[in-house]
Parts: sequence; structure tokens; C-alpha cells
Amino acid sequence: MAAALRLARLGLGSTAPNPPVGAVVVRDGRAVGQGFHVRAGTPHAEVWALRQAGRWARGATLYVTLEPCCHHGRTPPCTDAILEAGVGRVVVATLDPNPRVHGRGVETLRRAGLDVEVGVLEAEAQDLLRGFTTWVQARRPWVVLKAALTADGRIARPDSRRLWITSERTRSWVHHLRATCDAVLVGARTADLDAPDLRPRLPRLVPDKPVWRVFLDADLSLPPDHPVFRVAAPTVVFHDAARTPPTGPEFIRYEGAPTTAPGYLDLGAVLRRLADYDVHRLLVEGGSRVFSSFLAEGRADEMWLFVAPTVFGDVHSLGLASYLDTWATGPLRWRLRNLCPLDDDWLCVLERADTDCL
Amino acid sequence: MAAALRLARLGLGSTAPNPPVGAVVVRDGRAVGQGFHVRAGTPHAEVWALRQAGRWARGATLYVTLEPCCHHGRTPPCTDAILEAGVGRVVVATLDPNPRVHGRGVETLRRAGLDVEVGVLEAEAQDLLRGFTTWVQARRPWVVLKAALTADGRIARPDSRRLWITSERTRSWVHHLRATCDAVLVGARTADLDAPDLRPRLPRLVPDKPVWRVFLDADLSLPPDHPVFRVAAPTVVFHDAARTPPTGPEFIRYEGAPTTAPGYLDLGAVLRRLADYDVHRLLVEGGSRVFSSFLAEGRADEMWLFVAPTVFGDVHSLGLASYLDTWATGPLRWRLRNLCPLDDDWLCVLERADTDCL
Repeated sequence: MAAALRLARLGLGSTAPNPPVGAVVVRDGRAVGQGFHVRAGTPHAEVWALRQAGRWARGATLYVTLEPCCHHGRTPPCTDAILEAGVGRVVVATLDPNPRVHGRGVETLRRAGLDVEVGVLEAEAQDLLRGFTTWVQARRPWVVLKAALTADGRIARPDSRRLWITSERTRSWVHHLRATCDAVLVGARTADLDAPDLRPRLPRLVPDKPVWRVFLDADLSLPPDHPVFRVAAPTVVFHDAARTPPTGPEFIRYEGAPTTAPGYLDLGAVLRRLADYDVHRLLVEGGSRVFSSFLAEGRADEMWLFVAPTVFGDVHSLGLASYLDTWATGPLRWRLRNLCPLDDDWLCVLERADTDCL
Repeated sequence: MAAALRLARLGLGSTAPNPPVGAVVVRDGRAVGQGFHVRAGTPHAEVWALRQAGRWARGATLYVTLEPCCHHGRTPPCTDAILEAGVGRVVVATLDPNPRVHGRGVETLRRAGLDVEVGVLEAEAQDLLRGFTTWVQARRPWVVLKAALTADGRIARPDSRRLWITSERTRSWVHHLRATCDAVLVGARTADLDAPDLRPRLPRLVPDKPVWRVFLDADLSLPPDHPVFRVAAPTVVFHDAARTPPTGPEFIRYEGAPTTAPGYLDLGAVLRRLADYDVHRLLVEGGSRVFSSFLAEGRADEMWLFVAPTVFGDVHSLGLASYLDTWATGPLRWRLRNLCPLDDDWLCVLERADTDCL
């Protein structure tokens, strides 16, 4: 199952609206077939693995990270393929989080007389499925907040355009992280100052699967000819619905959204709308105002903090959450999920202390 | 030599004005004698190790983390003891950083016909000796800055008196760190708000060796009956030399120092004076104003950042260096020396990128 999970992980960021899934067919202790789901519309993980196994699948054990589907979607049900292949036993990491599917695939297989085990490496599988689960159950993306900060928690200074906080090698990690997401979001100020590309700059499994560039620009301060729009990549600009968007190039979609205060978009509405774009995993990259809003409203599920052994001091700099006031609410508690050194920088992955309840 | 270094480390914080030293006598691959320097006035590491080895020392190899002394101090020269014991070979990690001793001990042994090797695990030995080296060469303590901060770099909020940032278990590490230092320093504001005890709360090797409590109180704002002085422990209060200190209890020593600006003591003068107190390692524990000054003036050599997976936000909170402005100087560059998770918190040990030159 660990191998199946590793395979599943390869699809993270390219399978939406489907979940990432991996499968391994094992016979006499040897893997005779392996597969993972690459993108929607192409065969599911089980089908690839069973095809590769061919006649060796008969009587073998199929390990699959997610309950096989039993309905006709863009592809035929996997339960049919499994029964046809004649496998002897199916081991499933976790049931489908979609309440309309949950348990039915397993039931179908069991009714056909197959031995089905559920719950092997379940926590790991659910971890991998967080984006899909949040999307299918809560109709919003799983929100990953990513920041590069100094040891004293600062993310920018007035001269930050010409100044990277973390090393080049550390920054290359960001592209891996982006590639696991369906959209990357920044605020209008960051877009204006840095004109970031936001696309993952590395070879991708499914190059034409868009990673949406998302800008929060309530006041429509970024004109369509702004340098940030020079990249003709799929882009969504959220703005105050009371304003009329300009006519921009075709790759920019303008989305009106309600505001909670002048200049502040309703993040709940933004996230719901992004769910319509099949965004399972959203990466929020700044700046301080956007981070502060996401944190204040409890809309970040995970934080990836790339920290450099540098000190800016507070004077003339912006922090991770310079606009956040937790005086009334009390400190925001998170949990350390991962900590690793990256040469002279380090990465802290935090998750909300209450992530168990979506 | 690794064993000798481990032994030497036990003396860190209790040997001043002497350096921490460890020694192991090895004969036929077995350690027949071990020792470390416990406190000034008691036998040196080599002497303990040779005593323990007894007649087995003859022809054996002595591993010692620092060049043996060859002069009469409070104890007779170690070179005499080594020659008397008749060891066959001496392996030294590093030469004495004291320019008046440097190389003489080794020379004495070699002239007596002994085989002496120098430079085994030298970097590790020098690392352990940093406090002593800085004190003996630059006449100031090695300055360790210690802070407990949130993931966004904040160290305090107005309600911080009732709020610990890091966990109880993480905080217990601070006592180990304090025990390796000769003095612990905080600013007057922190002293006033928190009335910290500052003493290491754990069983110590030499319980009566003081860990000086040091307060920077330019304006003498802390009266002698302030709660922070309820603990009758050796205390130094640095104040503006232009002011007359009050008459306090005997355990408080008032030290006038020049100021660089109203309310700002000349840290260079403070550190020089602390060197007179045989402070080799000084722990600076806050608050933000003190951290900012030490960082701005480049007077911190090492930072121990205990970080909690918590977010305060900048509004209504103080950061590691809220008063630091690096706009003109550029960011302060440090180097990551150690990174380790402590349950849900983590510890980053940073050292100045230019520590090679004292």
C-alpha cells in the first residue's frame, strides 16, 4: 500500500476533478502491475495496474489507495474491471469521501464474493486526499498557505523586489508545491509589486492541465495590460461585484464577488467559486494582507513556511501577518507536521490544530 | 577524543574563569582514566584522568580537549603531571586560545620527548571553547540570544504574562541552556513585567557557582524592593553612570555604564564589565528592545530560537526585533547550525555568518 500511495502522489495536482489514486497488483509477493490516475477522462489507477498485470491478475491481490468506483462516469466502473480481471482479494486504504459513493464500491465487490479489506494506511491515504475530500464534502479547496520568511517572521521589506529571502534551491521547492495545487493565489498588491509568474516552473505530468493564477483585486487596480498579465496563462481575477471589470484578454476571467468591507472580498465566496473551477488544492502565496485575512478567518488549512536564517527587524518590513489582530480571539494554534532543513534554510509545515473537522 | 569532548561539555558553565576541558587516558584500546574540569581551583581534567588511570597511565595515550597548561596557577602545571605519569603519547584537540599560553604546553611536552599530536576534532573543541576564547581574546563574553517565538516571529503580546508561547517541555530546555552560561540578562521592561527568576532550575554540577542575573536598567526604574529582586541571588544592575544607584540589598551590585543615547546603555561597555565578572557565556533573554539593540550592534554571537506553532499577528504584539531597522544596513545574515523538533515546538540554533572572526 505504501507503494500505491507513492504512485498516487504522482497524480497530485493533475487529477482534478478526480482524486489522486494509486494501485498495485501483487502476486506471490511480487508487484505484477502498477498504476496511478493521471488525469480526469483517462483510465483510473486500478485499470492501469490490472492492464499491466494482464493474466497475472487472476487470483492476485489488488492494493488501491481509494475505494474503487462503481458508477459510469467518463470511464466505466472500476469494480467491473476488477471483477473481470478475477483478482482474489482487494485491499483498500480508505473509502471514497464522496457521500454518494462512500462504501458502495466495496459493497459491490463484496457482493460479488470478493474478499475486501479496508483501512490499510488509511491516515496516509486520507492525508493525500485532503484536497479532494474538502472539495467534495465542503465545496471549497483545501487551502495551503506558503510563505518565505526570515527567522524573525518577516516576509518583505520595501526593497524586497530585488531581494529573495530564501536561497535559490529552497525556492525550487515552491515549484514542486505549486505543481501539487490546482491554483495559486496572491493579492493585488503583491501582484502589482512583484508581477509574479505563479506557474510551477518544472516539467509536469500533464503540462496542459492549468494551474490557475488567481488574483484578489477587489478594486480592479490591476489593468489588463499590467505586467502580471503578460503571461498568457489561465487566470482568474476576483473583484468587488459592484464594479464592472475591464475587457481583458481571453485568458483572464473576471469574477465578481461580495465584499465584507471596502476592499475586502468575501473569502468564503471566493473559495466556493474556485471550487467550481475544480480547484481542490489552492496555494496562497501572499502578501501579508492576504495571509492576515486567511488566518483571521480561519481559511488556511496548512502552512508551508520556508524560513531563512536572516533577520529584518520589524521597522520597515512586513511580517507573515502584519494586519492580523488576535487580541480578542487569542493566539491561533497550529500543529507541527513536518520540519526539515534545506541547506541553510528550513521548512516548517504546520497544520491547523483542528483539521480533523473540516 | 569524542568521549573527552563529552566530558568537557559537562563543565560548561561552571569552570570560569577556566575553560571546560575533558580528558581520557587510553591503554590498549580501553579507557583507563577519565576526567573533566569541574571548577576553578580544583584539579584539571588531565589530572583527574591520570589519577584514575594510576599506574596504567604509563605508556598510555592521553586524549585531552585543550592543550595542557605549563604554568603554576591555582594548581600545579598539568605538563608536570603528564610527564610524571609517564604517558607515551598525548593527543590534543586544540591549542590554548590564550595568546600567552598558546603552544607552550605542547612545546614543553615535546621538549621532554613526548609524542604530541594536535588538531583531532579541533572544530568541535573550539566550538566548546567559544566562551573562553572570546573572553580571553576579546575580553567580552560570548553572547547567546535566546527567545521563545511564534511561527510568525512574535515574542510577546500585552497578555503575555499569563501566556507561555512554547510548551512546558520546551521551556525546560532553557534551564539547560542557562546552566551552560555564566550570566543571564534581560532588560528593565521585561524584568518589570515578568519579574523573571532567570536562574537555571535544575540540579547543577557546582550549585554555588553563581549564574549572574543581569538587568539593563539605564534609568534605574526597578526599585530595590521590586519583585524581581525578591530572589536573593547574585545580581548585577547596569544603569546610566550619570545616575546614582539606590542602596539595595547586598546581593545586588550596581554598575554605572556610559550611554549611547538617553535610556540606551553602551553594550560594549556592559560586556567588557561582565568580562570582569568572569562571564564567558552570556545568555540574553529579552525583551524585544534588548534583542533589537544586540542585533543592531552585532553583539549577539548565537541565537537559540524556540518556536511554537502559533500565530499572534503583528497587531498588538512584539516581535523578536520590533525596534530593529535594517533598512540602511541590509538584512542581518545568520547561519543555521542546528534544527530540531521538540514535540510540537522546534528549536533553531543560528550563528552569525561571520563568527569565524571574533
